[in-house]
Amino acid sequence: MPRSSQSSLFVVSGPSGVGKTTLVKGLLAADPLLARSVSTTTRPARSGEANGRDYSFVDRAEFERMKAQELIEWAEVHGELYGTPRAFVEKQLAAGRDVVLNIDIQGGDQVKRTFPAAVMIFILPPALASLGERLRGRGDVSADELEVRLTNARAEIGASSRYDYLVVNDDLGRAGAELAAIVTAERCRRDRKTAEFISKLTR
Amino acid sequence: MPRSSQSSLFVVSGPSGVGKTTLVKGLLAADPLLARSVSTTTRPARSGEANGRDYSFVDRAEFERMKAQELIEWAEVHGELYGTPRAFVEKQLAAGRDVVLNIDIQGGDQVKRTFPAAVMIFILPPALASLGERLRGRGDVSADELEVRLTNARAEIGASSRYDYLVVNDDLGRAGAELAAIVTAERCRRDRKTAEFISKLTR
Repeated sequence: MPRSSQSSLFVVSGPSGVGKTTLVKGLLAADPLLARSVSTTTRPARSGEANGRDYSFVDRAEFERMKAQELIEWAEVHGELYGTPRAFVEKQLAAGRDVVLNIDIQGGDQVKRTFPAAVMIFILPPALASLGERLRGRGDVSADELEVRLTNARAEIGASSRYDYLVVNDDLGRAGAELAAIVTAERCRRDRKTAEFISKLTR
Repeated sequence: MPRSSQSSLFVVSGPSGVGKTTLVKGLLAADPLLARSVSTTTRPARSGEANGRDYSFVDRAEFERMKAQELIEWAEVHGELYGTPRAFVEKQLAAGRDVVLNIDIQGGDQVKRTFPAAVMIFILPPALASLGERLRGRGDVSADELEVRLTNARAEIGASSRYDYLVVNDDLGRAGAELAAIVTAERCRRDRKTAEFISKLTR
């Protein structure tokens, strides 16, 4: 069966601190048809992290080599490189599995260029004030750094206009249910089901 | 608040016998933010039916008068006229409520012309064979009539290409969950949430 055209690539993005990692973890736990992409990174493995499960750990020379062809997006964060391997994503989609990427906004833009059919989901804080509280709650953010992050967040929220769906994370349970509903609804969208149904009719 | 632009009109349609009435009833029972349209009809009220709750019952002269301006769609079924009053739908949308219409495919096409932003959902039988079984199961359908209905169903399924979403009703629980997910996901679509969120940011 030509299932690959019936698979979806979901990109979940949003400002730092908005809770997208928690939301994506919940989504993956509840949806066995959804595959998580394992990122490649130059940062060292932390205690308890397994190569190939949490990240694929590579050195900088290897990462630089991969950037040219083998990554669908990459970014440098605090001096370390992070990227999404193309081969993994394409293999999952070809096998009929949907894939979810939890990436930053610059990465989302890169993915959309490579996979124009990607479903773009933006996680929003209920208001910038609450985003500030969450960042402050981490305890390791100075007032100056907080201001920089809030300025970045305002710019990132502006980027949300390039996304298909917005989920406001004012309540984790509700935001999680909305994220799951978007995945379900996208599976109902015409092209996929039409192909599936016509194949049933004609057999 | 200008909530009307943030409301959605959902059109649920599909071949006769596919189970759309059951699905829409389930959706309405679970979603207090969704309003059901009360149809206008020329057919006599049945025992237990209340005017204005189940239908608005009018005579043919009144219906003919309404057709010109006051109905967003209408159809003749077994010699009786059925239609959707424009005033009710517009009032609900203006009050910020989403509205769901359970109508036939011809009606759906009429609604889409009047409300281009309507969200069009098509309910599909798992296969034409099972649709035949369901119609046969009613016990009041002759072999000839069954053939006519199946021919109609094939044409109607062709019409599904004009719809945004397809839900295959092979399992009532799953199809109901998909219908509810579509409503939730549409509420997350960019335009509505952007407006909502910007109003929060600027207050």
